Amino acid sequence: MTEDIKLSKLKIINNVDGDVLHALKKSSIDFKNFGEAYFSEVKYGSIKGWKRHRIMTLNLVVPVGEIKFVAYDDRNRESPFFKEFVLSRYNFFRLTVPPMIWLGFKGMCKNGSMLLNIADIEHDPSESDNLQLDEIYYKWTDK
Amino acid sequence: MTEDIKLSKLKIINNVDGDVLHALKKSSIDFKNFGEAYFSEVKYGSIKGWKRHRIMTLNLVVPVGEIKFVAYDDRNRESPFFKEFVLSRYNFFRLTVPPMIWLGFKGMCKNGSMLLNIADIEHDPSESDNLQLDEIYYKWTDK
Repeated sequence: MTEDIKLSKLKIINNVDGDVLHALKKSSIDFKNFGEAYFSEVKYGSIKGWKRHRIMTLNLVVPVGEIKFVAYDDRNRESPFFKEFVLSRYNFFRLTVPPMIWLGFKGMCKNGSMLLNIADIEHDPSESDNLQLDEIYYKWTDK
Repeated sequence: MTEDIKLSKLKIINNVDGDVLHALKKSSIDFKNFGEAYFSEVKYGSIKGWKRHRIMTLNLVVPVGEIKFVAYDDRNRESPFFKEFVLSRYNFFRLTVPPMIWLGFKGMCKNGSMLLNIADIEHDPSESDNLQLDEIYYKWTDK
């Protein structure tokens, strides 16, 4: 069975001194395993990509700014397709990306943006592949 | 043996499109278990506290702004003491707080601050105690 990309709505608990934003619980249905948590910032207009993990499942949350994610799914070589997701605290979802999907993302906020990835394995450069931005044709200029 | 509060230096990997900031790896010496990850924002000048977890160990990282943490350790009733930590991406450490320590924190950044807590258990209000700010005497006005 081919695992699909999944969006999960996350709670924000409002508080006069500062909100609390959920990210991931052990009991979440799409929690597999804890390997590593890290942040990745993306400047306004900058694009990071393309990267494909062969083993890692990503759990992505955007607590700061706004990030456009573009997934290129060519697991079925005869019918590859793109999926787009724009995440921010105003559209507060966790994006779960299974292995073997190409991912790129762009910073959409003038003040900068940041994602948290809670991955099921630790960083290991040998399990990921990289392509230059122009090696997968996608028109990034549109929002 | 009484577990102490611990600071662990974290790496920031500079990148022209946006930095990558480490938070926690499964292989980190102070990683126990993954229970839940959540963000807590704290407005400039706001103070959240006091709270004591009876079971949870906290792993706190400050990727946005600057937060002053004050720990009040009264586990030895005859010699209680305070410890203070000011964390930000310019003093980028993970703060590991074992159970039974009172914690309060204050937002030190005009643009707002945010912490990530990677806790070893899921949120459970029955395992934490709260005190009003004035129930533990601490002079928060100093930086």
